Amino acid sequence: MAEQKGGFTLPGESGYEALTLKMAEKWGADVIRDSDGTVLSDEIVHAGYGIYSTICIIRDHNEWAKKNRDKLQQAFLCTPPAVAEGISLTVNLMESFFEEQFAVNDTEAAFKYWEVYDRTCNKKLDSDNWVYRKETGEVIIKTAVPFHRYTVSFLAYRIWEEISMYNHTTNNWDKEHLMQIDPRYPEAREYLLHWMRNWCENHPDTTVVRFTSMFYNFVWIWGSSPRNRNLFSDWGSYDYTVSALALDEFEKQYGYAMTAEDFINKGQLHVTHMPGTERKADWMEFINEFVISFGKQLIDMVHAYGKKAYVFYDDSWVGIEPYNGRFAEFGFDGLIKCVFSGYEARLCAGVDVPTHELRLHPYLFPVGLGGAPTFAEGGDPTLDAKKYWNSVRRALLRAKIDRIGLGGYLHLVEKYPDFCDYIEKVSDEFRLICSFHDAGKPYTIRTKVAVLHSWGALRSWTLSGHFHETCIHDLIHINEALSGLPVDVKFISFQDIKEGALEDVDVVINAGRAGSAWSGGENWKDDEAVTLLTKWAYEGGTFLGVNEPSAVEGYDTYFRMAHVLGIDKDTGARVCHGRWAFEAQDGEGVIPAGAWVEPKAHLYLTDGKARVLMASGGSSAPDSHSAGENEEWLPTVCENRFGKGMGIYLSSFRVTPENTRMLYQLIRHAGGEGTEGLYMTDNLYTECAYYPRSRKLVIINNSHREQTTSVPTEEGIQTVTMAPYDTVFVEL
Amino acid sequence: MAEQKGGFTLPGESGYEALTLKMAEKWGADVIRDSDGTVLSDEIVHAGYGIYSTICIIRDHNEWAKKNRDKLQQAFLCTPPAVAEGISLTVNLMESFFEEQFAVNDTEAAFKYWEVYDRTCNKKLDSDNWVYRKETGEVIIKTAVPFHRYTVSFLAYRIWEEISMYNHTTNNWDKEHLMQIDPRYPEAREYLLHWMRNWCENHPDTTVVRFTSMFYNFVWIWGSSPRNRNLFSDWGSYDYTVSALALDEFEKQYGYAMTAEDFINKGQLHVTHMPGTERKADWMEFINEFVISFGKQLIDMVHAYGKKAYVFYDDSWVGIEPYNGRFAEFGFDGLIKCVFSGYEARLCAGVDVPTHELRLHPYLFPVGLGGAPTFAEGGDPTLDAKKYWNSVRRALLRAKIDRIGLGGYLHLVEKYPDFCDYIEKVSDEFRLICSFHDAGKPYTIRTKVAVLHSWGALRSWTLSGHFHETCIHDLIHINEALSGLPVDVKFISFQDIKEGALEDVDVVINAGRAGSAWSGGENWKDDEAVTLLTKWAYEGGTFLGVNEPSAVEGYDTYFRMAHVLGIDKDTGARVCHGRWAFEAQDGEGVIPAGAWVEPKAHLYLTDGKARVLMASGGSSAPDSHSAGENEEWLPTVCENRFGKGMGIYLSSFRVTPENTRMLYQLIRHAGGEGTEGLYMTDNLYTECAYYPRSRKLVIINNSHREQTTSVPTEEGIQTVTMAPYDTVFVEL
Repeated sequence: MAEQKGGFTLPGESGYEALTLKMAEKWGADVIRDSDGTVLSDEIVHAGYGIYSTICIIRDHNEWAKKNRDKLQQAFLCTPPAVAEGISLTVNLMESFFEEQFAVNDTEAAFKYWEVYDRTCNKKLDSDNWVYRKETGEVIIKTAVPFHRYTVSFLAYRIWEEISMYNHTTNNWDKEHLMQIDPRYPEAREYLLHWMRNWCENHPDTTVVRFTSMFYNFVWIWGSSPRNRNLFSDWGSYDYTVSALALDEFEKQYGYAMTAEDFINKGQLHVTHMPGTERKADWMEFINEFVISFGKQLIDMVHAYGKKAYVFYDDSWVGIEPYNGRFAEFGFDGLIKCVFSGYEARLCAGVDVPTHELRLHPYLFPVGLGGAPTFAEGGDPTLDAKKYWNSVRRALLRAKIDRIGLGGYLHLVEKYPDFCDYIEKVSDEFRLICSFHDAGKPYTIRTKVAVLHSWGALRSWTLSGHFHETCIHDLIHINEALSGLPVDVKFISFQDIKEGALEDVDVVINAGRAGSAWSGGENWKDDEAVTLLTKWAYEGGTFLGVNEPSAVEGYDTYFRMAHVLGIDKDTGARVCHGRWAFEAQDGEGVIPAGAWVEPKAHLYLTDGKARVLMASGGSSAPDSHSAGENEEWLPTVCENRFGKGMGIYLSSFRVTPENTRMLYQLIRHAGGEGTEGLYMTDNLYTECAYYPRSRKLVIINNSHREQTTSVPTEEGIQTVTMAPYDTVFVEL
Repeated sequence: MAEQKGGFTLPGESGYEALTLKMAEKWGADVIRDSDGTVLSDEIVHAGYGIYSTICIIRDHNEWAKKNRDKLQQAFLCTPPAVAEGISLTVNLMESFFEEQFAVNDTEAAFKYWEVYDRTCNKKLDSDNWVYRKETGEVIIKTAVPFHRYTVSFLAYRIWEEISMYNHTTNNWDKEHLMQIDPRYPEAREYLLHWMRNWCENHPDTTVVRFTSMFYNFVWIWGSSPRNRNLFSDWGSYDYTVSALALDEFEKQYGYAMTAEDFINKGQLHVTHMPGTERKADWMEFINEFVISFGKQLIDMVHAYGKKAYVFYDDSWVGIEPYNGRFAEFGFDGLIKCVFSGYEARLCAGVDVPTHELRLHPYLFPVGLGGAPTFAEGGDPTLDAKKYWNSVRRALLRAKIDRIGLGGYLHLVEKYPDFCDYIEKVSDEFRLICSFHDAGKPYTIRTKVAVLHSWGALRSWTLSGHFHETCIHDLIHINEALSGLPVDVKFISFQDIKEGALEDVDVVINAGRAGSAWSGGENWKDDEAVTLLTKWAYEGGTFLGVNEPSAVEGYDTYFRMAHVLGIDKDTGARVCHGRWAFEAQDGEGVIPAGAWVEPKAHLYLTDGKARVLMASGGSSAPDSHSAGENEEWLPTVCENRFGKGMGIYLSSFRVTPENTRMLYQLIRHAGGEGTEGLYMTDNLYTECAYYPRSRKLVIINNSHREQTTSVPTEEGIQTVTMAPYDTVFVEL
């Protein structure tokens, strides 16, 4: 039985009333929720718990949708480039797209936005050079240049709501396809307001309406070939907010028209991982304004019925933007985030909203997201839960989360009593940690960190999607490592630098591939930002660059901060320049044993003054003739004194316990706080948090092995031996 | 005793007259040469051999040079960027340069070319913003922007001729430093003509004057720090042809002035590995015109004395340009190339000149170029000779070379009788191969290859320097592999494509890193070239791309030929695009066992139609959290049918026997000639050449092991077993 009660949301299940109430008791739940596909019975609803009810406002209206197919949500699609073999070319619009997801929108309002491009010379064709054949779904280009390549960009209705499409196909459902309606149309808004009122009337017992989420899904374009079903997906992009009407209204409001190409961008679309454009920023603002204005009408209505309104920060979250400074205008009472990783917990915790809630994994489903069994033959849900809790817990030690909970089919837990016991332990631990936060903030070191990228605070903690979707990016690994470190972190943009953001910062991290939003791309052409960072480093700041930090073409160095980093990357122009000889030495022990940094080719020390702390051999080509390149040692970690500050360079960053410790030690080292100190465990597989006001020390074992660890405190050294994944609470 | 005589140049040595004549007999020499630092005695000179005498026309005039220090050769140097910590900045000009190599040229004529740049914003400073302090050798920038970075570009005299500087420091010589005078000055030309006449008068027995080479050395800038002595070296660049006078004359002739920045290029200089600019092309033409015009005066004089004039294609060869169509204007009788590799033999063989001669390695020196012992304790000169001959021989089978020879101190061979025997064998083999060429061309397959890069024929076979200097480039490996294949090869530029160069070509190879001269860089923005290549491929041609072929930013694909290759590289914009699943299958056996291609990250199949022939796992990060990237399989070789032709892609190319065979099989496959056929050995460690006119088959063992190999011929299969590195001659 839970030691305390509260802060826990339980997924109830009709037909399992006794189990629901038993588990509510065991896990200390104060709220019972329904889930996608479950309904709560009266017995549960009237058992004295708060009741969450889930609604997906733009879905579940198929009757209306079928009558209003011209008010479904839309997207721009672009055909794959086709080579003209003669002077005309026929392009089938839908050939490469999933026909159950899209239908061509050839209404007059939409057709005027269609575009045909010659991609060989990147020029738009005049519309009298092509015709559309409605009956075959083809565009015929009449004046092609032989052997040039052409694409057709067109508007399409999305005829299957993407999340239900995913669940449907994954679970082999045999139900009607759900469609999504676009509240951009006044008729849809009128319908939805009416529907919402009805819903509130019919759900008197609901205390919290959970919106999943607002109106527009992240982009998820499916293809016709099973060999490449997922043509495109980006959790942070706005391509699914488009429609002929929205485009028309945008032009009225902003004084210029967005074109298909503004979205299609040569077929690449605009991923969140690349820096945005002015026009994209305008469009995001335009959509955000709309989502707030209509969203607020719905929330106000919920409030008028005495219910709270929470929003689920996933799926159709686009346009909500919890980090752009306007989120409070919605009037939400809470925000719920499903979490796999620590950075997602911080993403949730950092939003300006009264209640922050996490939906923990594993969900109570037979199989997990990756398709592996969970609550089914071959699954080990307890171990899964331990691993997920392990990822999230260290972030919860740093930033307060108000509630946790589960989702799915509760009856599945019946056969897994050890899972039930473990969740009881987790919920008790969570409430304890929560109470420490209530008493006062945890201890942090003096050194303050800012992560610099082109989105700044707007994309705090996250990149674009879950960890497994973004793991090729160094920054998601950095964010994940930072999420549990006793370090204050903020996320800043290049504009922020010019507005004084460096003033209270000791370490600026810039991590990513050249040209990406995370490295910064063209933002590095801003001389003022470079000069301010240089001055700040000279006066004591540390610029910590990872992979291709500050990289942009057109200057004497590729890394614009090469003079601070002491290292640069040769883009090919410097292959005839000599290289400074070096030996890797980590005199101050900044790199813990087991840390590993993937080497990158073409790096060179600029003036030979940087100290190489770690280096790695080049590629392992099995032959002899090509000794030159392959025998080269590549610096993987180096440090360069610059005035009173320094540059630190890592050629990559992947989150592991060893690398997380390395990052922490580098940050401490940069801030002059040494590589060991108060409230720092001597065993890198463990971490701890100390809450000075309540004098509580929490030590966590992040590994699957037993660990013994010692923590220097103001009251002497605390030494504990811990079971795998365990948490120990110590009162000083 | 040599079976035949002729085509062999022996380095004679005074004091070793008997040895000289004995070895001349043994190796079948018809010519005896002096070497740098050796003189031939009368006994040798009058023994009935042709006599080569080596002169380095711009060196060995120290007496005149010391009186004419203002007529020494020069270079632009650029100080490393320095950060201004306040509003002024003092820059020491020579701090990072080797003071024995350079001296500041602050004459009025030169000073006007000096430039100070703000490298933070890449702007030139007006000259009233800085002053030069002659007494301290410093430039003081008076109006610096704090924390901007500055460089000073200035002219410097080169006060130590680079080749003698290298030999001097390598061999710890204690001699006077030799200087190099610049024939750009009329006084220097007058002096040199006078000197040349004198020399001819005083060398009546010399039959061939070997120029080493003409006037301007390749660029070789040494630094002040022993940790980075070699600041810059490029065998193909023109930075050592500059002087105040040349710059002034250029402006008069071309109507515009070259600036320091035209050479310095943000401190990167202009390496041959990057595409040139229009201005660089003008400068090269300007220098070439000068080298021809004055060179011809010297050669005419040599001819007037009844002697022949050969040129050594190395060291100060810059401005000679044997492949730009004007070389014949010099009137040289021969060209000599020192060779480590097959491509160098082809480089020599392809020049339009009566006599082509190779200087074989090892040189008769105690230590070789890399510092390893040759004719000294621990050395094995016979094995060295076998390996070098092994590299060069396969190229000699394909293209006729007229002469070979050695260099160095002949007395060193006395202690190595097996070396003497081996050279006898080599010289006999050489003369035999030579006689086959005389009878008629060797057999080649029908498929014709063109290598496409931004220099085209101007840089046929070579990139910029010896193999070990350029081995990081895929193309040098390709060239080396091609140098011994029975395939006709030409080198073409993008302009050539527009002038019809594809007409007789079956396979176009484009190999290199994005932006490089070899991949082509901005040349790929030429829509016409792309369209012509597309049409040519559609009609049956094969575009064979390696690494980042046809890569340039700004289009819907990074590889401009992605539609032919079926594969492209994601520069970061497509990280959210799905990837086509594939399985690697080499159904037609195009890839031989043991072939190995280094994988490259971020590749993706464009439309899923390409067939992946070989693939490789991603990086071997030792952790689990980052499974996404690391578990990815990367295509390393793939093939894409396109119309009647195709694209073939290799993610890299390194020359090995297996990979050379792979390249050959891919070429045959592209040309529809299958992966086996006439005059193709069944053992890839062996190769062969067939001379139809003389009906001679030459089989070579390229390996250090005994090999048995079979060759299908028109007269049936020939099977031989061969000793390591051996050559077998078969008459059909």
